Amino acid sequence: MLHLQSESTTRWLAQVDENLDEVLIDHAHCERKAASTAMSLMNSYTENRKLCEEMARIVEEELEHYFMVLDLLEKRSIVFQRLQSGHYGRELNSLTRPQEPHRAVDRLLIASLIEARSCERFRLLAEHIRDRDEELATFYEGLFESEARHHTTYVKLAEQFASRKTVMDRLDQLSTQETAIIAKGSPLARMHS
Amino acid sequence: MLHLQSESTTRWLAQVDENLDEVLIDHAHCERKAASTAMSLMNSYTENRKLCEEMARIVEEELEHYFMVLDLLEKRSIVFQRLQSGHYGRELNSLTRPQEPHRAVDRLLIASLIEARSCERFRLLAEHIRDRDEELATFYEGLFESEARHHTTYVKLAEQFASRKTVMDRLDQLSTQETAIIAKGSPLARMHS
Repeated sequence: MLHLQSESTTRWLAQVDENLDEVLIDHAHCERKAASTAMSLMNSYTENRKLCEEMARIVEEELEHYFMVLDLLEKRSIVFQRLQSGHYGRELNSLTRPQEPHRAVDRLLIASLIEARSCERFRLLAEHIRDRDEELATFYEGLFESEARHHTTYVKLAEQFASRKTVMDRLDQLSTQETAIIAKGSPLARMHS
Repeated sequence: MLHLQSESTTRWLAQVDENLDEVLIDHAHCERKAASTAMSLMNSYTENRKLCEEMARIVEEELEHYFMVLDLLEKRSIVFQRLQSGHYGRELNSLTRPQEPHRAVDRLLIASLIEARSCERFRLLAEHIRDRDEELATFYEGLFESEARHHTTYVKLAEQFASRKTVMDRLDQLSTQETAIIAKGSPLARMHS
């Protein structure tokens, strides 16, 4: 349903255990960046009313989550700060084909895969820390449903720019590359490392 | 209260009379661009919680207005489409000094002046068309209050990056230049032509 071709490994969970504060800070940035991506799609395809309406809903939800994560950080006395970005988003976005309508399809499908991976990791994180940190487990359980919904929204919107078959084939290709990118890992502990 | 140094002229009103549909389309773009500006400020100053909260509120309000204008266009069978941008925003934004914290002050004050000019023009437009187009007059009357509020929010936020005196001196300078830019006019009929 999430169109991912791999499951996150214990490598990532070990990295989270050792750098939980940093991963939580990164999560706040992810929510803000997700809002920003939706706004940017609205700017690029402003004549597409359906897309704009869906993007506006996503902007609102992601910003709401952003402040929820900031509140969580504050409660835990973790200082929110800028972090060096991981390679994940940059490498995925570099797969965008420059020509329209391919560009629109790719931007939407890459956004859909980032949402899918977040969803998968939120669920895994919630299960992993349940015994030790009930509050955090509940927090992530409350978030993953909306990430799954956003994934589906982005895939459906891509079908406004190409046939369903073309979209699903390209999603399959991009998902293969997403799996390769996430498999590399990163020395920076991030939500998508 | 809006820190503007000039009133809009009958030249602009004549342009509106001749190109009302185009000005309404431009207005929709203005609302989306205003949301985008607020999001961009949130991205640049993400460690400033107060700023982020105010920007999130502005994003939400501007997007709400964006869809209100799109609905109005639809009701009037005006096809929403891309328009060539006028010179106003581009020339104003080019006044931004590159070094922080000047850059933050300037970005916030330029946003404040754009909101102020919108407020002034919405009110003028409402008065101008009251006798001929009650619906449109009421629409613009309903919007100008929030533009005034956004103006004040942006000026106050600038004071997080410089003293009140420095901010007010710079606002005065920028407002002088805003008046020069708007006085030039533009052959393109726009909300800020």
